[in-house]
Amino acid sequence: MSQNTPSLRELEQQQRDAFAGRHIGPSEAEIQHMLAVVGHDSLEALTDAIVPAGIKSADPLALPGGLTEEEALARLQAIAQKNEVFRSFIGQGYYGTHTPKVVLRNILENPAWYTAYTPYQAEISQGRMEALINFQTMCADLTGMEIANASLLDEATAAAEAMTLARRAGRSKSDTFFVHDAVHPQTLEVLRTRAEPLGIQLQVGRPEEARDADCFGVLLQYPDTFGRIEDYRGLVEAVHARGALVAVATDLLALTLIAAPGEWGADIVVGSTQRFGVPFGFGGPHAAFMACRDAYKRSMPGRLIGVSVDAAGNPAYRLTLQTREQHIRREKATSNICTAQVLLAVMASMYAVYHGPEGLKRIARRVHRLTAILAAALRGAGLQLGSGEHFFDTLRVDGVDAEAIHNYASHQRINLRKIDAHSVGISLDETTTREDVVALAKIFGVQVDDVDALDAETADALPPELLRTSAYLQHPVFNTYHSEHELLRYMRALSDKDLAMDRTMIPLGSCTMKLNATAEMIPITWPEFANIHPLAPAAQTRGYQELIRSLEAMLAEVTGYDAVSFQPNSGAQGEYAGLLAIRGYHASRGEGHRNVCLIPESAHGTNPASAQMAGMKVVVVKCDGNGNVDLADLRAKAEQHSANLAALMITYPSTHGVFEEDIVEICEVVHAHGGQVYTDGANMNALVGLAKPGKWGSDVSHLNLHKTFCIPHGGGGPGVGPCAVKAHLAPFLPRALGAEGAAGMVSAATYGSASILPISWMYIAMMGAAGLRKATQVALLNANYVSRRLAPYYRTLYTGRNGLVAHECILDIRPLEKATGISAEDIAKRLIDFGFHAPTLSFPVSGTLMVEPTESESLQELDRFCDAMIQIREEIRAIEEGRMDREDNPLKHAPHTAMQVSATEWPHAYPRELAAFPLPSLKKHKYWPPVARVDNVYGDKNVFCACIPVEAYQETAGA
Amino acid sequence: MSQNTPSLRELEQQQRDAFAGRHIGPSEAEIQHMLAVVGHDSLEALTDAIVPAGIKSADPLALPGGLTEEEALARLQAIAQKNEVFRSFIGQGYYGTHTPKVVLRNILENPAWYTAYTPYQAEISQGRMEALINFQTMCADLTGMEIANASLLDEATAAAEAMTLARRAGRSKSDTFFVHDAVHPQTLEVLRTRAEPLGIQLQVGRPEEARDADCFGVLLQYPDTFGRIEDYRGLVEAVHARGALVAVATDLLALTLIAAPGEWGADIVVGSTQRFGVPFGFGGPHAAFMACRDAYKRSMPGRLIGVSVDAAGNPAYRLTLQTREQHIRREKATSNICTAQVLLAVMASMYAVYHGPEGLKRIARRVHRLTAILAAALRGAGLQLGSGEHFFDTLRVDGVDAEAIHNYASHQRINLRKIDAHSVGISLDETTTREDVVALAKIFGVQVDDVDALDAETADALPPELLRTSAYLQHPVFNTYHSEHELLRYMRALSDKDLAMDRTMIPLGSCTMKLNATAEMIPITWPEFANIHPLAPAAQTRGYQELIRSLEAMLAEVTGYDAVSFQPNSGAQGEYAGLLAIRGYHASRGEGHRNVCLIPESAHGTNPASAQMAGMKVVVVKCDGNGNVDLADLRAKAEQHSANLAALMITYPSTHGVFEEDIVEICEVVHAHGGQVYTDGANMNALVGLAKPGKWGSDVSHLNLHKTFCIPHGGGGPGVGPCAVKAHLAPFLPRALGAEGAAGMVSAATYGSASILPISWMYIAMMGAAGLRKATQVALLNANYVSRRLAPYYRTLYTGRNGLVAHECILDIRPLEKATGISAEDIAKRLIDFGFHAPTLSFPVSGTLMVEPTESESLQELDRFCDAMIQIREEIRAIEEGRMDREDNPLKHAPHTAMQVSATEWPHAYPRELAAFPLPSLKKHKYWPPVARVDNVYGDKNVFCACIPVEAYQETAGA
Repeated sequence: MSQNTPSLRELEQQQRDAFAGRHIGPSEAEIQHMLAVVGHDSLEALTDAIVPAGIKSADPLALPGGLTEEEALARLQAIAQKNEVFRSFIGQGYYGTHTPKVVLRNILENPAWYTAYTPYQAEISQGRMEALINFQTMCADLTGMEIANASLLDEATAAAEAMTLARRAGRSKSDTFFVHDAVHPQTLEVLRTRAEPLGIQLQVGRPEEARDADCFGVLLQYPDTFGRIEDYRGLVEAVHARGALVAVATDLLALTLIAAPGEWGADIVVGSTQRFGVPFGFGGPHAAFMACRDAYKRSMPGRLIGVSVDAAGNPAYRLTLQTREQHIRREKATSNICTAQVLLAVMASMYAVYHGPEGLKRIARRVHRLTAILAAALRGAGLQLGSGEHFFDTLRVDGVDAEAIHNYASHQRINLRKIDAHSVGISLDETTTREDVVALAKIFGVQVDDVDALDAETADALPPELLRTSAYLQHPVFNTYHSEHELLRYMRALSDKDLAMDRTMIPLGSCTMKLNATAEMIPITWPEFANIHPLAPAAQTRGYQELIRSLEAMLAEVTGYDAVSFQPNSGAQGEYAGLLAIRGYHASRGEGHRNVCLIPESAHGTNPASAQMAGMKVVVVKCDGNGNVDLADLRAKAEQHSANLAALMITYPSTHGVFEEDIVEICEVVHAHGGQVYTDGANMNALVGLAKPGKWGSDVSHLNLHKTFCIPHGGGGPGVGPCAVKAHLAPFLPRALGAEGAAGMVSAATYGSASILPISWMYIAMMGAAGLRKATQVALLNANYVSRRLAPYYRTLYTGRNGLVAHECILDIRPLEKATGISAEDIAKRLIDFGFHAPTLSFPVSGTLMVEPTESESLQELDRFCDAMIQIREEIRAIEEGRMDREDNPLKHAPHTAMQVSATEWPHAYPRELAAFPLPSLKKHKYWPPVARVDNVYGDKNVFCACIPVEAYQETAGA
Repeated sequence: MSQNTPSLRELEQQQRDAFAGRHIGPSEAEIQHMLAVVGHDSLEALTDAIVPAGIKSADPLALPGGLTEEEALARLQAIAQKNEVFRSFIGQGYYGTHTPKVVLRNILENPAWYTAYTPYQAEISQGRMEALINFQTMCADLTGMEIANASLLDEATAAAEAMTLARRAGRSKSDTFFVHDAVHPQTLEVLRTRAEPLGIQLQVGRPEEARDADCFGVLLQYPDTFGRIEDYRGLVEAVHARGALVAVATDLLALTLIAAPGEWGADIVVGSTQRFGVPFGFGGPHAAFMACRDAYKRSMPGRLIGVSVDAAGNPAYRLTLQTREQHIRREKATSNICTAQVLLAVMASMYAVYHGPEGLKRIARRVHRLTAILAAALRGAGLQLGSGEHFFDTLRVDGVDAEAIHNYASHQRINLRKIDAHSVGISLDETTTREDVVALAKIFGVQVDDVDALDAETADALPPELLRTSAYLQHPVFNTYHSEHELLRYMRALSDKDLAMDRTMIPLGSCTMKLNATAEMIPITWPEFANIHPLAPAAQTRGYQELIRSLEAMLAEVTGYDAVSFQPNSGAQGEYAGLLAIRGYHASRGEGHRNVCLIPESAHGTNPASAQMAGMKVVVVKCDGNGNVDLADLRAKAEQHSANLAALMITYPSTHGVFEEDIVEICEVVHAHGGQVYTDGANMNALVGLAKPGKWGSDVSHLNLHKTFCIPHGGGGPGVGPCAVKAHLAPFLPRALGAEGAAGMVSAATYGSASILPISWMYIAMMGAAGLRKATQVALLNANYVSRRLAPYYRTLYTGRNGLVAHECILDIRPLEKATGISAEDIAKRLIDFGFHAPTLSFPVSGTLMVEPTESESLQELDRFCDAMIQIREEIRAIEEGRMDREDNPLKHAPHTAMQVSATEWPHAYPRELAAFPLPSLKKHKYWPPVARVDNVYGDKNVFCACIPVEAYQETAGA
């Protein structure tokens, strides 16, 4: 080998290191430069200066080295191929669907949509909010309700939210909730889990039994899980007469043909939009929804998009009624829901935009025709149908040898629903063909020779008194974009309005908006992952099982815990599952009375909300001036509540962006009083490869796979929040559907959002042990670099040892506001003029901006951000020094739209160029916000949450 | 069945009709409205009024009904699965490569890139022109040449273009071109085809024989097709001394390690960039390139991107030196090349941007290390290597039982190159692993136990005197975007500068910018289509064979011809192949003297250029006032040249957008004089399902699959131009590589751009007979609707019977220009302010705009376009009436950038709002051009065709 040629092995190693090099933004040279700025010689030296020695891992992660993208994909493909994709007729809330290809490619596979953040910054989120308001309109229209939210996690948790909403909103003082005995089994499971800690009694029975039940609410399924469509009109009146509310779980496709629950008196309607173009994915993610009467809108959980106006008087979307949310209500929270399923809701809404009301009805009619034909064939052969006379797409065949049927079906690569030894369920869907119907009949020994003849002699099986006569989806948005060009352009136009990570860093503190690499995204649309029903027999899901075991082992190694449940489909759900595990653990030891949960005052609002939901009493622990837990106060509170101490919930590094030195001692204090330590995983990105909560004394954490482990935020969901625990808590993790176990289910599907777990698996596999550790170190470096570069301009509020921050830094704007009237929000809006998404605004400290750059941002991008912040500081200085007016300045009027800066009339004292092009680089590339600053007060006063009537636009356009 | 429920069969039909409904823009209701505007009752009535009865097909197309997207995909998947993907070590110009996933998803699968048009309108094409100038810089840098073009069709045709360039540019009067006997076989084939009609003699021999050859040019392959790297420095001097030029076919990856041809005297360098991230695809499409000395830039074929300035003095890209092109030079054209491989060139350029110089070198080193190790193992076992001492990635193993070797390899699912009975070729590439090397050695009976040991004892096999020492790809663009976020944002930023069909209709006459549906695009990236080497054994390509046969049958049915060759990889290539078939046919009948080609004066410039290349003499036929062929002149010319008449080339409907009534008679006249009729397929979109050229008397057509059959334009390529002929010409279609046949090869690969044929197959399969016909009818309707709506404002220059146009209309701007000085180009540029790509400018008639809306545009989009054109007419009227200045008006200063309209200084008499938001709808959605009007004169005077030095930007940004 010639002297200066690297060896093959070295070249191969370079190839394998390439992915980490692409995930991590700064190059080696940039890292050296940045280390010099923060005053350390190496990443190791910086790490030692930040991470307390007491928790630092001695050994490298026991994970393999990184793989190339191709190696990782090949390995995952081999795993995927262990899944077997059968035709599914299982139903039970999950149905086959055709994702429109134009939606698949241009939404699900498009970084402009999947890398976006939750639309807190309204001005840069108008596109996805329009898509979400389409979703709300779609759900409200089809259910016949007045208002709908912008998605919930799944139908089962939506039903649980309906239960608690009914309790809050109804007039009954009862603690009983009546549940139809033919809701989907997973719904009943989740209701049981949720009810118990809240002291709600569930009464399960036939709908007619609800007439006389003393309850605060009733949940009906319509059509029910076995397919029956029943007329509940009289029942609803009776329930209302007793002061209770009626919630209905329903199916949107069925509602294109049968009367909407809102038309027969429902108060709350929930359901899943999965079958609107979102694949099975072994259970998730999919978007559920809740619709309700307008009267309950301020009590409704979840995100709600509303219409307001901007500073120029044009209509503009925003998240409305945020005061309902957990992060505002904290200990008074009524739900911990904090994530929606935005990406999936957008897909479902686009499915409706694509098909329109007529297209949806055609699909529903075909599904129903096929079902009616199948029913006729089976009945004609003397089979007993438990689904009754009236059904939409689902049949229940009774009186058969179910095992034999399933065996025979399995040989045809067909899955049917397992009900019991003598009953089998069959649900048809958009993907079902006449050939399927023939094959299905044959499974029951029925030969169908002439489908058309059977069609001609078979009447519809919809209840005549419940046929839908009302119109739906009449808004132009559902009636305009039916050619592919029009839909493509509509989706592009919407995404162009928004800022996502494909155009800029999103420096959100605590949200870890890191790279969602393409190679990580590719497997989720493989049919072997996408097309598996959550109740497919285990023999067909070996690939998923291997993936899940493999990812569990990876995450256990990273966190130092022993077991991981993937059921929680959001971070808050993970918290809730973790607290339930603690609750279950105490109960199992005869200490069920332990119900006090200590929570530092700096905690994220979901912490107290989840504690409430887990039946715990929140006791707040003080923080010191640096944002750390006040150890003395912790000791005192632990002492005071020693007998009943259930848990401490703590975030580490703290929400103040600091590695607290006392963490080991904190854990010891809690354990000494019989409590368990819950570590919020939100800041895990500062720990991976450096320290393990499970090793320093923590008992349980949830992990935000959508933060630390690269699952994209999707514009505000899906979130994925697996719960990781030490061995003693493992028996109390959520159980599988239909399985035995100490704990119940927290989500509808056993493995939560299983279909996107490949993203995190790919990330860990490609980064390898060394890559993961370096990523964390660079995340620390990037945050400290920003903090240091901005130090002459903005004070970093909290620092740890050596004046360093962890992976994020909080910039204190309060002194500037005091001096000039310029608020943190003004800076957030002004950053839009520079093409940036704002940092986290006023959390955890009001009047601050929390910046988390993550490891994926290059020096170039960090400098672009710092340059913008410095220019903004100079603008503030101009106000301080009286060179710029306190009101008429580019900060107060930010962001500036193209229409404003190009209008003949320019009412400002500062020049147009300063408004729009405050830095020269913007002349090369400029993002224009579609609206000026959105009026929050107007929006909360005038709550309007559906598609804007066309006239509103016309008025504006003409203006 | 209930009374008002459609039957299952009706519902299924609606489902199958859905795709055609989405491809065709207007809804049924819109069609009725538009028919009323154009004054006909039905599409059938309109069709009868437009299409001459004499050619109208009596029967519907004998094609099946349309399939749903899912059905078509399933059927094509079944075909694809008949291909077998083996590991390929065949080489011969095609090598395995890893497409960076971020490039795959965000370029190849992104409509913002693939639906764009050729960058004739510079202001809305800055993004892809930057990508192309990166491509040019990459090719020039790596080859060590002064200038490179923005891609050619394939290496073989690039070599043929080099041959003719050498003839034009060199000083030698010889008619001989010397060709290295170790060029790739397909290169030699295409050279033979091209040379013969031009009277060029090929002399094939060992390089050293070129020293004494009396030739005008020499083509060398470096490294050669068998892997050898030889030192040609002395040879080049000798050739130059004789006044001949040296062309070199090379491999860009090898050039990262060995001396560039430009460093040892090459005058012209060609090659393929396929291995820079573009899959095999059974032969194409891939981007080839030509680089040459600066002195030859005005003679170089193909597109060339240059840097100019815009009206505001900022740097701006444009297509430069267009005067070289065939559409300008017509009968003087030196090449008919009219398409580039833009989409593939963009991919290859992004591969270089992604890896950078260091990354490319690492890849090359690894490939070479593996090759050196394999060579050592084989040599160590006594095998004879014909590739000699010095090689990069390719070995030739001699003295073996080749058949036995191939058989054994085949059992390992490995393909090697077939050279002859005793020699086998092996080419390694980026995808090769050490395991592959072990497996390859084993095929030759050599056991490699310790790869690392062999690595340690094996020296590089690059010639020491030809090691590359010069730098390359030093521009920041190749050294900045190495993190995935940076690259993703760079690609997004570029695409945001451009207008493609994902944002607007592109109403280009003659270019048929119709929908490229997502479902059509999906199969091209299936591994079974993407990963097949063009020389894979036939037993592995049964899927491709079936696809090609199936598509051939479809196209034969649509056109009325009998046989189709898919080898031509552009429309112009298809023309050329068709003319060669005619030439071959005449020769076969002893009428080789027939060499006169009649071409109407309105013809596209490629027609005469192709005729020239096919050795024909062009005789121009006049057109009458309505743009139709002057039948009297045709008769006279046919009579005059009767003895030598070879062919008539005609476009139908005419380039003037009219169905000539006399077409049958025209064909008869030509046939009567012994000529053949060539019908240019450019306007086939007006014929599909209505009339068949092969039935009305035409003998041959090329088809533009990238126009009529939905292959996207890709920003200026790939084009796909199959040649369809009547049975008597079938024997003269291009032959397969290595096969016998009367005709030669016109392209490098037997099936041309095979990997994108699934797009057209899907289109035809989903549309079905009825859908295709209706699409044509709506294309006619849309064009007539635009013509009619604009009639009060712009005169349509040519109409047929009943005052109707065909599928496009030519708007005459000349009277307006005379009155106001506003030119067609001013209107084209002003349309950018409205967010539109301009119609075809000044073709076929100077001072006109030719509009082809295609069937895929909805009424809404057509009206948006008409509204813009009407508003523009009102602006012109203001000039006519003296209300607006002849120079200071929004037309002359269009397009307007955001920087201009938001500058404090506004130097115009018209208001800013009129400049930027001339219609209210623009306030809702506005495209901002990144540059003002580009200065063409400056660009052609100051030709600069590489990446802009960073200082240029800095100066601008600071300005």
